[in-house]
Amino acid sequence: MLLGDNPATLLFDGLYLEHLRESIAMQYYFNGFKPGDPTDFRERGHRLVTPLLADLPEAVDVLIVGCGPAGLVLAAQLARFADIRTRIVERKSGPIMKGQADGISGRSIEIFQALGFEERVQKEAHFLEAITFWRHDTERPENIVRVTKKIDGRNVFSQFHHVVLNQARVHHFLLDAMRKAPAQLVPDYCRNLLDMQVGDSDDNYPVRVMIERTDPDHEGQKETVAARYVVGCDGARSTVRQLLNLEMRGDSANKVWGVMDLLLVTDFPDIRNKSIIQSANEGNVLIIPREGGHLVRFYVEMDKLKESERVSSRNITVDKLIAAAGRILHPYTIDVKEVVWWSVYEIGQRLCDAFANISPEDADSGQPNVFIVGDACHTHSPKAGLGMNVSMHDSFNLGWKLASVIRGHSSPELLHTYAGERRAIAEELLAFDRELATMFSEQEVAGAKERENGPVATKLQEYMVKADAYVSGTLTHYAPSQITVESGHQHLARGLEPGKRFYSSPVVRLSDARPIHLGHALEADGRWRIIAFSNPEDPTDSLSAIWKLADFLEKASESPIRKYTPAGGDVDSVIEFLVVFQQGSRDINMQDVHAFMSPPKGAYRLRDYNKLFCPDLDNGDDIFDKRGIDREGCIVITRPDQHVASVLPLDGYETLATFFDGTMIPQNK
Amino acid sequence: MLLGDNPATLLFDGLYLEHLRESIAMQYYFNGFKPGDPTDFRERGHRLVTPLLADLPEAVDVLIVGCGPAGLVLAAQLARFADIRTRIVERKSGPIMKGQADGISGRSIEIFQALGFEERVQKEAHFLEAITFWRHDTERPENIVRVTKKIDGRNVFSQFHHVVLNQARVHHFLLDAMRKAPAQLVPDYCRNLLDMQVGDSDDNYPVRVMIERTDPDHEGQKETVAARYVVGCDGARSTVRQLLNLEMRGDSANKVWGVMDLLLVTDFPDIRNKSIIQSANEGNVLIIPREGGHLVRFYVEMDKLKESERVSSRNITVDKLIAAAGRILHPYTIDVKEVVWWSVYEIGQRLCDAFANISPEDADSGQPNVFIVGDACHTHSPKAGLGMNVSMHDSFNLGWKLASVIRGHSSPELLHTYAGERRAIAEELLAFDRELATMFSEQEVAGAKERENGPVATKLQEYMVKADAYVSGTLTHYAPSQITVESGHQHLARGLEPGKRFYSSPVVRLSDARPIHLGHALEADGRWRIIAFSNPEDPTDSLSAIWKLADFLEKASESPIRKYTPAGGDVDSVIEFLVVFQQGSRDINMQDVHAFMSPPKGAYRLRDYNKLFCPDLDNGDDIFDKRGIDREGCIVITRPDQHVASVLPLDGYETLATFFDGTMIPQNK
Repeated sequence: MLLGDNPATLLFDGLYLEHLRESIAMQYYFNGFKPGDPTDFRERGHRLVTPLLADLPEAVDVLIVGCGPAGLVLAAQLARFADIRTRIVERKSGPIMKGQADGISGRSIEIFQALGFEERVQKEAHFLEAITFWRHDTERPENIVRVTKKIDGRNVFSQFHHVVLNQARVHHFLLDAMRKAPAQLVPDYCRNLLDMQVGDSDDNYPVRVMIERTDPDHEGQKETVAARYVVGCDGARSTVRQLLNLEMRGDSANKVWGVMDLLLVTDFPDIRNKSIIQSANEGNVLIIPREGGHLVRFYVEMDKLKESERVSSRNITVDKLIAAAGRILHPYTIDVKEVVWWSVYEIGQRLCDAFANISPEDADSGQPNVFIVGDACHTHSPKAGLGMNVSMHDSFNLGWKLASVIRGHSSPELLHTYAGERRAIAEELLAFDRELATMFSEQEVAGAKERENGPVATKLQEYMVKADAYVSGTLTHYAPSQITVESGHQHLARGLEPGKRFYSSPVVRLSDARPIHLGHALEADGRWRIIAFSNPEDPTDSLSAIWKLADFLEKASESPIRKYTPAGGDVDSVIEFLVVFQQGSRDINMQDVHAFMSPPKGAYRLRDYNKLFCPDLDNGDDIFDKRGIDREGCIVITRPDQHVASVLPLDGYETLATFFDGTMIPQNK
Repeated sequence: MLLGDNPATLLFDGLYLEHLRESIAMQYYFNGFKPGDPTDFRERGHRLVTPLLADLPEAVDVLIVGCGPAGLVLAAQLARFADIRTRIVERKSGPIMKGQADGISGRSIEIFQALGFEERVQKEAHFLEAITFWRHDTERPENIVRVTKKIDGRNVFSQFHHVVLNQARVHHFLLDAMRKAPAQLVPDYCRNLLDMQVGDSDDNYPVRVMIERTDPDHEGQKETVAARYVVGCDGARSTVRQLLNLEMRGDSANKVWGVMDLLLVTDFPDIRNKSIIQSANEGNVLIIPREGGHLVRFYVEMDKLKESERVSSRNITVDKLIAAAGRILHPYTIDVKEVVWWSVYEIGQRLCDAFANISPEDADSGQPNVFIVGDACHTHSPKAGLGMNVSMHDSFNLGWKLASVIRGHSSPELLHTYAGERRAIAEELLAFDRELATMFSEQEVAGAKERENGPVATKLQEYMVKADAYVSGTLTHYAPSQITVESGHQHLARGLEPGKRFYSSPVVRLSDARPIHLGHALEADGRWRIIAFSNPEDPTDSLSAIWKLADFLEKASESPIRKYTPAGGDVDSVIEFLVVFQQGSRDINMQDVHAFMSPPKGAYRLRDYNKLFCPDLDNGDDIFDKRGIDREGCIVITRPDQHVASVLPLDGYETLATFFDGTMIPQNK
């Protein structure tokens, strides 16, 4: 279904293993797990103190319910706008300290990069480099033997590798980003959502939310908040979803999995590699080594346990999980020294019909102002490590749209595209998860071929390897809409498809000859980008196509930059114009290209030279080749969430002029 | 003198541009300079508050005087040992906010990596990629023209590139590292050193220091601290040096330079590149672009100004500096919008005879307990950007030695090697600076050849390019001593010379197939390392040389690991044993090699699998080739400051057994 759906794969040769070199081999949790920053001895062993709890304001632009990954990514995105009043409420009394999800896909790290803190994740995380498959020995089926050890190819799909890290640390980085951002946002803990009423959409703050405090000094105290928008990031048992009378549909609890984070001694040789172990009669285990060099996560498939252990999850103890894992790993042994965290999952594939209080199909009746995100609208198994990632991608899709509407740059109709785009992604996710779950528990009888040649790859193994592209999160492909337009010029940028995220490639910044990733210039700051890939003409020639494009964008009355930038705002504050030349960085004088490419900005009218790039010819990385950009050049419009919106020819002024009219509000009335 | 002194250069082909790809193009200071973390809006525009000032204790192990780069690196190093009582006192009322040094060499970033925060520097810093040379136009000598634009080759000497960043930010990272470390060290501000007496060395705390407080609530209050060791990191006018009656010798103030950090608008095309500009008659300017994309530093040579500006530095104003810079850049113009910081340097090449109260030559009379470090014992011009770097390297040399003596691992004689090693480095530095200063102000008359062929490279240009190796800080080569032994086996590791720092190279960690830098495993944690490069034998064979070496280290009574590790300490707590195999990571089962290579440690006796490495064959990086390691294998002993101590054959047990006897104290009495 999803695999092979990647026509640009040929362009993506084994790039960018290099970034791994940067990273440090941090070791910690040696003498036991301690929550918090592993490098900060002030935090070791201390439970973080619940912050001082402020009162909620009477009215906010956005009220986020729930401090999970979806809620925090949304909060981190909105906190970048000082002119948006956001609050995030949470039932718990403070941040989580351990456990839960741990897989972080390449695309998620790209988003962290856009939010400004990916280097912290890369420093602490464990990198999943190798994957091993183990099956029962056909000669001695009570033993397991390694079938394959394979270097994981995931980072061919992104400049960032797939890593694993405690969800609590991801939360911590997001909380830091929120707190440091212009809006200086901190969560409001100890808050239970009681009720919600959606009023007249003519009202500036149409959603009224009733909340109860649970902190000791204010227990039972009620608060009422009026909000322009409410976003339910409150998990699989979402109160926001229930208050909207929306239901989850699908299979419930068809599989039971035990999960535990352990410190242990073992002679199993792949304990530091991702390992999939299918025993003959004792069930299956998935091993995920974790950050710090010693911690390891075990997923134990419970419905493959012996009859005697086949009990409801309520009776499962961690000792039973450990015993089962030990039997599955035979002849290897495990000696568990500390159970850091454990849980039992009973989660099926479920999906909510609607992702907002008004669905795109009902757009005639108005625009949505209550949304649900992440586990609140889709649940699935934890096996592929996708839950936290897809939830964060949901809210990264929604965040810039809310910001753009609240700031008056886009009309509220834009908000329908959240459900339009993300519900389709959730459907794909559930289909993937069903397929994977089936394969994972499938028990193939060793055939004649296997007895002759030794163990061979199972279907699961083949599937897992192919599935890497999907798990990396980079196959997400939004359908055409007002903000994703197939213009018929795809041949001009074969590796940059509308609907997919802009796949970064190295370039050199003209001003200082620094090799950087072009994609890293696409910060999560709410801005659209017009990225012009120039043709071979001399860009300092005023008759060149790139000069004329700059002239159009600067001066023409139809220029979207003129039309949609508020008076008094920096010229790049709504739509940023970036240029990639074909010449090397030694061959162009940055003062001689069109001055609109490095426009004066800010209080001092300093010129911004950070918008001009060249291919990294010295290192053999020509972005034109890597991303299939035609030598006659083109324009790539990217959305504020880094997804490609459209590909146009360099002189496609008319289409460029009208592209933004679908959703944006002219500012220079 | 120093150039060409790099016999292993041939091994160092253009490695590791890749790490640049990782970094982000951060932009800030657009609307004016703000001190503090540029990503933290809570700090913007606020002066950091002076922390609460605690009383000094009566006795400490180490008292550091001065919170400059030398003092802070020493403090960050010592703070990693919870069992050492360190305090650092500072005359100022809080951390510096701007100005001063900005160049950070590759070797300094290696040290930051060893201290745990190099990724923060790399994220914020500006990377000096290109260097341009400008001279007067021979046709129109009132104008300058570009002679050359060259991509800077500095990072061929280190895995880290030369960068520039405000000294205040470097301090901030060091202060963070101190505060987060096990000793949780914070500076004691508002402290003036008044007097110091060095008493009987039989006394546990022989140095008595008198300090006066200057904070408003305690102004004039005196404190007396007894210290085992005092380290003067108090700059060119060092009080510690004066109290030791030591004098600086050399040229004083033979050149005057103006320096300013500016936000400006200009049409000079290389404003974002390091640029050296030699005008015909108006003097010379060195331009260093800085972090954030807009800030730029100008060094203006004052004694090349016109007669009318030739005044003492006391009369120089920033307006005069700006006017001079403008004339030198003609026909380009500068329009300065903000002067962030400026200063005038009148510094000559000066060196102190002694670096401690007892010099190595007087070792018969006892061991030193007062040291001076950095500018307190050597000063020179700021042109090569070496001052901050060499000062930090001074204290990185001293830190582990103090720690080892205080913790009872080494005898106090070790401390003589600080002056022995670092005074020679300071002499080299001053020679380099004299040569560079002469060339920099040399004004060559354009010759006939130049008129024919256009401008040609000057001697300065040739020298600057060659000098990159020196400026990278990686040529430092300590002379033979008890801790640096030329054993006659250098052919076994041609790229890893005793006395030079261990030059890192990529490897793959066996346990998880992760590509990492081997050098990054050499943390600044006070540990010596025995790094064994294996031969091609099967390492799981108990007859192999590497197995026998592990057996020797684990069991022999002469094993330095047995001899020098305190009872009850982890087996790797004093000397760590690391192994690099020749086989690829798929070809070795980590459970089948000698168990001493992944020893049980800590409260849980977890096995530490982070000590086993393989060549990175998949990426074409074979450390044996890159570092000239003989295929018959060898042992490389590295010091706690990452310098290579000795190279031995794999079976050189006897030399290995005796190597540590020179300075270390047996623990298993």
